[in-house]
Amino acid sequence: MANCIIASTSTLHGSEPLAYLQDTLINLYSGIEEILFIPYARPGGISHDEYTIGVNNIFKKINKRIVSVHMFSDPIEAIKNAKGIYTGGGNTFLLVNQLYRNEIIEPLKKAIHSGVPYLGTSAGSNICGLTMKTTNDMPIVYPPNFATLGIVPFNINPHYLDPDPNSTHKGETRETRIKEFHNLNPQPVVGLREGSWLKVYDNKITLEGNLNARIFEKDKEPYEIETGSSLSGLN
Amino acid sequence: MANCIIASTSTLHGSEPLAYLQDTLINLYSGIEEILFIPYARPGGISHDEYTIGVNNIFKKINKRIVSVHMFSDPIEAIKNAKGIYTGGGNTFLLVNQLYRNEIIEPLKKAIHSGVPYLGTSAGSNICGLTMKTTNDMPIVYPPNFATLGIVPFNINPHYLDPDPNSTHKGETRETRIKEFHNLNPQPVVGLREGSWLKVYDNKITLEGNLNARIFEKDKEPYEIETGSSLSGLN
Repeated sequence: MANCIIASTSTLHGSEPLAYLQDTLINLYSGIEEILFIPYARPGGISHDEYTIGVNNIFKKINKRIVSVHMFSDPIEAIKNAKGIYTGGGNTFLLVNQLYRNEIIEPLKKAIHSGVPYLGTSAGSNICGLTMKTTNDMPIVYPPNFATLGIVPFNINPHYLDPDPNSTHKGETRETRIKEFHNLNPQPVVGLREGSWLKVYDNKITLEGNLNARIFEKDKEPYEIETGSSLSGLN
Repeated sequence: MANCIIASTSTLHGSEPLAYLQDTLINLYSGIEEILFIPYARPGGISHDEYTIGVNNIFKKINKRIVSVHMFSDPIEAIKNAKGIYTGGGNTFLLVNQLYRNEIIEPLKKAIHSGVPYLGTSAGSNICGLTMKTTNDMPIVYPPNFATLGIVPFNINPHYLDPDPNSTHKGETRETRIKEFHNLNPQPVVGLREGSWLKVYDNKITLEGNLNARIFEKDKEPYEIETGSSLSGLN
C-alpha cells in the first residue's frame, strides 16, 4: 500500500526547485507537518546541513517542516518514526552507499511499503527501482551493493534524454546504454523525462506530468507511453 | 618503462574507427605482428567474437593480426605472452568486472609496466587511471572493485564534453560530476576530448592530438593544457 511520487528531477529549467510539483506534494503529504529528509546524495558535494536548509526553505512554503536523517544519532529509528519521507537528488552512488552504511535500506523499504508518503527526485527516484544500474551518475564511491528498494518492479532512468540527431559526440546515447543494460539484466526500464513522475498508490502505478515516457523492455523495440497511462502491468 | 597510447575515443565523427590514430599505431606496434585484443567492454552489447572480427578488419590495414583474450582457455597466460595489447571501448563496468573475474588485472598491469605496447580507447583508457570512478558509463554490472591499472598516477575522463551553454537539461554537467568526485577522492582527473590521447613512454606522459585537455585537481579551478604539454608532474 505504497504512496509515492517518483519524479525525474527536482527542478525544471527556469523555475524554483519542486515548484512544478507543489500541488502534488500538498496532496501527498496531506495532514503531515514534519517530513524526514534523506540528504545523502549531496548534489554538487554540498554538506548535509546546507542541503537540508535549502530543502526546508522550499517545504516551508507549503507549511511543512524538514528534519534530516543525518541529524539523528539513530537513523534507523528516525526512519521508523517518520510520518513522511523525501529523498533528494545528487549522486546515486553516494546515496546508496550511505543507505547501506547506515543500514536503512530495509527500514526505508518497510516504511514505504507500510504507506508512509514518499517523494523521490532524481537519485531519490532511482532507488525506487529494483537496482541502481540505470543511474546516469558518476561512480565516485563504491557502494556495497547496487540493489535498491524495489518499490516498483522495474528500473528507473531519471533525467531521460532523447538522442540529439545533430550530435557528433561518440559517447553512448542514453538509449544505447539502456540497451547494454538489457544484455545483462531482465527488468524493464522507465525513461522519465524531466517534468514527468510516477505516482504509486496502493498497487497502481501511473505516469503523471505533461510528457510521455519511454519504456525499454528486453528484446523489444523501445516505445512511448502517454501521461495518465498505467504501468501497473510492467514487470 | 610503459609504452602506451591512452585515447579518448576509438572513432571520430565521420571517420573510420582508429583512422585518426593510424600513424600513431604503426609506430606503437612497430615490429609486432600479432596484437592481443581485450573485448570485454562489448560496445552496444555485441558478442566478443563480433567485436574481435571488427577490430581485426581495422588492424589488417596496418598489417597486424588480432587474437582476442576470450579465445584462450587461459587468459592469464595469454596476457603474459602478448607482444602488444589493445583494450577497446564499450562499458567500463563490464570491462572491469571481466578483468577481475578472469584475474588479469595484475598480469595486465605487469605486462604494461614491462613495456608491452598498449593501446586503450574509451573504456580501455579509463582503466589506465587509478580507479574507474570517473567513467561516464552506466553501472550495468557490479564489479568486485573500482580500482584499475594505475598506469598513470591520476584518473581519466574519456569523451570529455564541455557544458552546453544553451542546455535546459538539469542532469549534471561533466564538470559538476568531476567536482563531486573530488569531494571524496584526491587524485587529479584528465578530461580527454575526443581526438586527444595521452602518450606514455618510459616515465613521460604527453598530451597528443589536436585539442587541449581539461585538468581537474582537488580544491583548484579546472584549467586547460595545450597539446604537446607534459603531464609527468601531475599526481
